[in-house]
Amino acid sequence: MLQKKKNAVLVDGVILNGPIMDSKAGEKFVEEACKIIMEEVIQKADDVTEKVCEWQAPETLKQILDLEMRDTGESHQKLLQLCRDVIQYSVKTSHPRFFNQLYAGIDYYSLVARFITEALNPSVYTYEVSPVFLLVEEAVIKKMIEFIGWEEGDGIFNPGGSVSNMYAMNLARYKFCPEIKEKGLSGLPRLVLFTSEECHYSMKKAASFLGIGTENVYFIKTDERGKMIPEELEKQVQRARKEVRGGEHEGERRRSVCRLIHDYRCNFQLPFSIYKFCRADSVAWNPHKMLLAGIQCCALLVKDNSGLLKKCYSAKAAYLFQQDKFYDVSYDTGDKSIQCSRRPDAFKFWLMWKALGTTGLEERVNRALALARYLVEEIKKREGFQLLLEPEYANVCFWYIPPSLRRMEDGPEFWQKLHQVAPIIKERMMKKGSMMLGYQPHQGKVNFFRQVVISPHVSREDMDFLLDEIELLAKDL
Amino acid sequence: MLQKKKNAVLVDGVILNGPIMDSKAGEKFVEEACKIIMEEVIQKADDVTEKVCEWQAPETLKQILDLEMRDTGESHQKLLQLCRDVIQYSVKTSHPRFFNQLYAGIDYYSLVARFITEALNPSVYTYEVSPVFLLVEEAVIKKMIEFIGWEEGDGIFNPGGSVSNMYAMNLARYKFCPEIKEKGLSGLPRLVLFTSEECHYSMKKAASFLGIGTENVYFIKTDERGKMIPEELEKQVQRARKEVRGGEHEGERRRSVCRLIHDYRCNFQLPFSIYKFCRADSVAWNPHKMLLAGIQCCALLVKDNSGLLKKCYSAKAAYLFQQDKFYDVSYDTGDKSIQCSRRPDAFKFWLMWKALGTTGLEERVNRALALARYLVEEIKKREGFQLLLEPEYANVCFWYIPPSLRRMEDGPEFWQKLHQVAPIIKERMMKKGSMMLGYQPHQGKVNFFRQVVISPHVSREDMDFLLDEIELLAKDL
Repeated sequence: MLQKKKNAVLVDGVILNGPIMDSKAGEKFVEEACKIIMEEVIQKADDVTEKVCEWQAPETLKQILDLEMRDTGESHQKLLQLCRDVIQYSVKTSHPRFFNQLYAGIDYYSLVARFITEALNPSVYTYEVSPVFLLVEEAVIKKMIEFIGWEEGDGIFNPGGSVSNMYAMNLARYKFCPEIKEKGLSGLPRLVLFTSEECHYSMKKAASFLGIGTENVYFIKTDERGKMIPEELEKQVQRARKEVRGGEHEGERRRSVCRLIHDYRCNFQLPFSIYKFCRADSVAWNPHKMLLAGIQCCALLVKDNSGLLKKCYSAKAAYLFQQDKFYDVSYDTGDKSIQCSRRPDAFKFWLMWKALGTTGLEERVNRALALARYLVEEIKKREGFQLLLEPEYANVCFWYIPPSLRRMEDGPEFWQKLHQVAPIIKERMMKKGSMMLGYQPHQGKVNFFRQVVISPHVSREDMDFLLDEIELLAKDL
Repeated sequence: MLQKKKNAVLVDGVILNGPIMDSKAGEKFVEEACKIIMEEVIQKADDVTEKVCEWQAPETLKQILDLEMRDTGESHQKLLQLCRDVIQYSVKTSHPRFFNQLYAGIDYYSLVARFITEALNPSVYTYEVSPVFLLVEEAVIKKMIEFIGWEEGDGIFNPGGSVSNMYAMNLARYKFCPEIKEKGLSGLPRLVLFTSEECHYSMKKAASFLGIGTENVYFIKTDERGKMIPEELEKQVQRARKEVRGGEHEGERRRSVCRLIHDYRCNFQLPFSIYKFCRADSVAWNPHKMLLAGIQCCALLVKDNSGLLKKCYSAKAAYLFQQDKFYDVSYDTGDKSIQCSRRPDAFKFWLMWKALGTTGLEERVNRALALARYLVEEIKKREGFQLLLEPEYANVCFWYIPPSLRRMEDGPEFWQKLHQVAPIIKERMMKKGSMMLGYQPHQGKVNFFRQVVISPHVSREDMDFLLDEIELLAKDL
């Protein structure tokens, strides 16, 4: 028997002795690739002489990249070249002149935590399989709750602010009508949701996904600064009461309005000590934005401390959440989630917080805000630049009026022409690769640029560059 | 003016010249941490003499780890020690004797892709900000659809199989009742969902989250192999028709059963060429399981090619999905998602597929299946081991009957005592750190072990070790 075992064991034509992978070659591959990542991404992150992107149109890029997956594998040499290609044609979101999104820059500590995460490949549902990451998540959530000023609370890291909103919306409805978990919505009166007309688009996605329906979202008018007008909320509540009652007159079984007032702040990025959340029941906090924790790092925090998250979401899978374990199974927090496998996103935020301290995080935010204010002052000084409104935060919205439009009379033609300017400048900056800046129309306002300051690698010189570059790109317009 | 600019610019007490981060120190920190990751995680991944875990009870581990986040940051030296601690006390899911979950092992190619992802920090919603990763996702989804044998289709990578199931369930209801997106469920007849009693627990979570309600999930009886019995499905459909009609008699406004038959296979792990999906409308495929793509890597594939995903999920945010861009905006696929920021999970699967080829992926799966069959034969040979049923796949379920129970009469007392055996063995193996193996009760069957073979680092010797170790740990029981 023993003799037989020392020989090759063959089952269905497969030799089962020893592993099939060549670990040494694999490790060497990882080392070589890490060198490329270090040189081509990390060391270039603060280098403004590098391109932000090397633009190629989709059809061209498909030709350049060897995308096809074949029957046979490629050599390590070929794979390393593929890695180089992927890096070369990807947008460098850590570049100091990447202003296109609500994330940017590089944080070395978060990055290390992410490398550790990938190497350890954990899933955060039970303590037995993820002891460190569960404790870290618990500590981070506790600290975040303390930070926003609640006396107690609960929370869960999840895959994005949009999903956080879904969690919160479902929690609110569970709190008011817990039987929805079992019974569903069909027997119930129509649920109505009130939110700001300036809310993130995920609110509509959530209303649709959760079976509430986008037509049952009542949008509240905002003031000129985009803030919800309290009187308008009252109006919408009255409107909803009337409309839902109207439904009853038509013979519909709609008993009353079940109000779901979801306190929501669009794209909240932790401006330290600015906002207080005393009256909110839940907060979606995305440290992957201004705090640079890396995509994705998002927590939903809830003020409730009665186990609402668990009651609302648990499904008690016996194969995962065994109750006869030898340790305190209250640490098996995975059943609070809508996910099964879940990434340890709290960990990167934790290591960053350990590295920088609260003071270091605050410094970053304060600097970004100061840079935004500097940019605003510069915009005011320059001909052709026009601010949409005084920002309160790190997003600066402005128009660039090119030379040919400066003497034009204010009127529909002017705005129509101005609407076309930002897309042209954007195309030119993308093709040049000098910077990336977003534009958009909004609430009847024609296309304007939206500058977001996030990265600690950004300096005053980059703000000046931004304005100079727009002038340069648009001088013939 | 220029002169002034060369001097320090101070806004609200913040100096804005030059970046605040010390890039060189940051890069050095990343390099040192990478060395630790390489030595402590990657190079030890195939070493069976290492512990799978270094068990500490939650309260003890809290004392060992310095979890607290303070006002002031820590030194690089301290941070590197923290990284070592995190690694030391984390479960080594890549260890050849980690059999605890439906993921395990290490794939060097996927790992490299994940490091690249973290360094580039992309978000996959628009082509302009994620050109390579969007094209890669498109290519991977196309290949996956081809692989499962559909002529056409669509798909999206998302954060987990549970979320895939939610996507699919919502898509099914949208397909049959598209007005639910706007109107919600409240005015509609009760929706009923049919699924296997052996389905993943996410089906219930999804029913609750989407507003359908867990009581409206009709579970279909399965045969002794856990497969849905077609006649039982028919019975449940009849039952649902009656119950919902009964509701009408009670005065409820329930018009008819809207059938949502969701074709679902629990924890599908791509056993190449085994299953065909001709009759399914959607498939949730998790390459982060048996294919080792790393958590998370999950795609929902849908057979529909009429843009159902987009119609069902889009919210058309103007700040992200501008329609006046200079390139073909049909490449801006982010609006098909319930998420806003989204990780490029297709990329790691792509690089792995490029590296191994379809043949290499098949080899891995075939070997895992052969190892499972080897284990089954060994279990049959050994006294005290009892198979629950002949496996068809890589999950081997068995009881270990310790010496003291072997002469006991079959009866309630026997099963009650046997129920307690697996948790004790599990506790002992955790504390010893020699391996990790899951146990669970199921459908009236007392606690049994569930062995899952996944990692290509696993060999026949590890299968033998597994059985020897259980005998050793339980010899006094």
